[in-house]
Amino acid sequence: MKTLIKNTILIDMAQEEPNIRKADILIEEDKIKKIYNNNLTQDEYLEINKDCNKVIDANGMICMPGLINTHTHSGMSIFKGYKDDNTLMDWLHKVIFPVENKFQSNEIYWNTYLSCIEMIKSGTTTFNDMYFNMEKVIEVAEEIGERAVISWSVTDDSIRDKFEKTKEFFYKYNHKNSLIKVLVSAHAGYTCNPETIKRCVNLAKELKTGIHIHLAETKSEEEIIQNRYGKTPTRYLKDLGVFDVPVILAHGIYFSQEDIELLKTIKGGISHNPISNCKLASGVCDVVNLKNNGITVALGTDGSGSTTTLDMFEEMRLVGYLQKVTKLDATCIKAYDILRMATIEGAKVLGLDNEIGTIEEGKKADLILINQNKTHLFPINDICSNLVYSATGQDVDTVIINGKIIMQNRNLINIDEQKVRNEITKIQEYLMKGGE
Amino acid sequence: MKTLIKNTILIDMAQEEPNIRKADILIEEDKIKKIYNNNLTQDEYLEINKDCNKVIDANGMICMPGLINTHTHSGMSIFKGYKDDNTLMDWLHKVIFPVENKFQSNEIYWNTYLSCIEMIKSGTTTFNDMYFNMEKVIEVAEEIGERAVISWSVTDDSIRDKFEKTKEFFYKYNHKNSLIKVLVSAHAGYTCNPETIKRCVNLAKELKTGIHIHLAETKSEEEIIQNRYGKTPTRYLKDLGVFDVPVILAHGIYFSQEDIELLKTIKGGISHNPISNCKLASGVCDVVNLKNNGITVALGTDGSGSTTTLDMFEEMRLVGYLQKVTKLDATCIKAYDILRMATIEGAKVLGLDNEIGTIEEGKKADLILINQNKTHLFPINDICSNLVYSATGQDVDTVIINGKIIMQNRNLINIDEQKVRNEITKIQEYLMKGGE
Repeated sequence: MKTLIKNTILIDMAQEEPNIRKADILIEEDKIKKIYNNNLTQDEYLEINKDCNKVIDANGMICMPGLINTHTHSGMSIFKGYKDDNTLMDWLHKVIFPVENKFQSNEIYWNTYLSCIEMIKSGTTTFNDMYFNMEKVIEVAEEIGERAVISWSVTDDSIRDKFEKTKEFFYKYNHKNSLIKVLVSAHAGYTCNPETIKRCVNLAKELKTGIHIHLAETKSEEEIIQNRYGKTPTRYLKDLGVFDVPVILAHGIYFSQEDIELLKTIKGGISHNPISNCKLASGVCDVVNLKNNGITVALGTDGSGSTTTLDMFEEMRLVGYLQKVTKLDATCIKAYDILRMATIEGAKVLGLDNEIGTIEEGKKADLILINQNKTHLFPINDICSNLVYSATGQDVDTVIINGKIIMQNRNLINIDEQKVRNEITKIQEYLMKGGE
Repeated sequence: MKTLIKNTILIDMAQEEPNIRKADILIEEDKIKKIYNNNLTQDEYLEINKDCNKVIDANGMICMPGLINTHTHSGMSIFKGYKDDNTLMDWLHKVIFPVENKFQSNEIYWNTYLSCIEMIKSGTTTFNDMYFNMEKVIEVAEEIGERAVISWSVTDDSIRDKFEKTKEFFYKYNHKNSLIKVLVSAHAGYTCNPETIKRCVNLAKELKTGIHIHLAETKSEEEIIQNRYGKTPTRYLKDLGVFDVPVILAHGIYFSQEDIELLKTIKGGISHNPISNCKLASGVCDVVNLKNNGITVALGTDGSGSTTTLDMFEEMRLVGYLQKVTKLDATCIKAYDILRMATIEGAKVLGLDNEIGTIEEGKKADLILINQNKTHLFPINDICSNLVYSATGQDVDTVIINGKIIMQNRNLINIDEQKVRNEITKIQEYLMKGGE
């Protein structure tokens, strides 16, 4: 299977500074086989075209790596805008948990399907999902062909079952050439006692995988851990050995200077979720400070319930807005740095940077084409600035994952969008608008 | 001329709380003639249809008042993303002014055209523009059929010419049934000395119109005025009589408690421009506090140079994000309040609330239809939340201004979008990529 992308404007994201150029890209099976800078000559094109299965004319389109959503709960799509403008604790305990507790396989399957469609349609090619009934998440990801990192969310109440599931899933799905990577999740310091956390660390060590955990999301989390253990949430995790394995630390807002020192040693990094942090009034992650300390910061959306959107372009621009306005410094973060957070830095945080996150020969072919031929993206003075501050997910024209075209001209290939919506409507009816 | 909008979901924005209902809406000439709640019966429909020129099937679409952009400089569209990630002063003096100084009628005309297209395509039906060569802004607004409030930006250097222009334009364009309203602009306290400001106030009194002025946008503005006059920028304006006439105060970030007391007396209100304030690292307007003090706060985009987008949906959600996260209170502002800022509060600030800002019988027919049939707007748990936090300008399907359809199915009526882009590209070439 060979696909040729012709006449694109390529941002490969492989360098520290933007490297934007005209290029043709040859995809063979799941990989980027060859990048032709400055476009193919007619003779070269005719030669390659001989055994190409598909040629995509990407004239006027930007080609960049698929976006990487490093923290989400895709089973929560049904909660979009559901009784928000509420306090976090009221929202969780009175609004979300009573419905979520009724979720079974069917609900997780369709909710995840809806999230995956929204992610594909806004250019996300890899997502890192912490939730439950993860067999359904894997089923959806494999059906669609989206790259997924999954973990069973462990709390003190649910440790035994989820440990077994994590092991089982790791050995079943986490292998070479799979779209699926399996992590261990401890939900958070405030929901996992030291014994639970230690067991998670040991399991991650046994499986040679990483840990996905919420950390330092709210002031009240900090107070809870401080009251229970007399230390910061970061120190709590460090002392229990969590940082001995690769980590994805979701949110990362409340850090002391000593915490920052501890974080300098981690493998993995922070998943910054700015929309969720704003909508839930959690606080602002100091991305600039973390980056200045050499800590990798990637981007995530959190679940639809808290963000009301899974569009990573919206997350990207909010990174810029929040950093600039909280530091009163418009130069503190550049558009290109933010694009990196949504691509290669995401790949690094997930331990997948050898495979995805940039467009380079030999890497997996996870890439998106963005249609620049729209008035809100015109004129083009700075492509990176336009992508971060003007583009939306709806400008994504084509999505290719693992060499396979998942969306072209905004049409999803082999996905019945209407059926998914119909199923979600049924679930809404019996779970949220009345009894079962 | 009669147009019937059938089967829509109407948010009329006329109440303090959401009033969302199924409705049919009859437009006659420039006005909303009749709102039929719960849809017309078949017999009523057949009767009305007899002399209707156009019937729009708005099934699955939300109908709301057109958005009102209360502060912009539409002649700046060519600066979108132009060397941003820069400090405000460097950006203005080294990047913007050298190019802007070369602008003449041709550049203003095409730049404004591009801004107007972007505004229409994202649902803005009225804009409040402070700039120069305003005859070109009026020309574009009238050609397209967009409602415009205009003012010539007066500074100490340019007072004589712009005073005459303001008077001339007021008597020529500012009359009943015109799409154009003319204001006086003093650019800002730091660019206008007391004499200039006083003359602006007198002119506004003479013309019985309002003043559009930048106020309290940056910390440095506050320092400049404090050093020059020993008072806050707000007190400076108050003492010169600016608040004796209706005012549109753009930005409004730095206010003392005493300033807030002074603002309680104004007619008009604040135009909050959150994206510009973030991207230029100006600061965060305390919308909640202003509103709690009874001060009207509306929304604006500022020029494309500072925001990189003219999409009011992006501005709306940023209001929510910033207020919630700076106050660490997710309940401090509701989605519906934000929709009001973008509609009826905007009309109030511009002194046009008798004509526009809500959908009510007798008001001007300025309204938009939003296509809800998109996965990123699904499921619908709360229409207001979806509009503010999930929708983008690209979801606007139809725009009607003063009873006239300007866009339908996202197709602009009688606007040659490609020609506008071609002209802008020419201007870019000779002004920004080399000499004249």
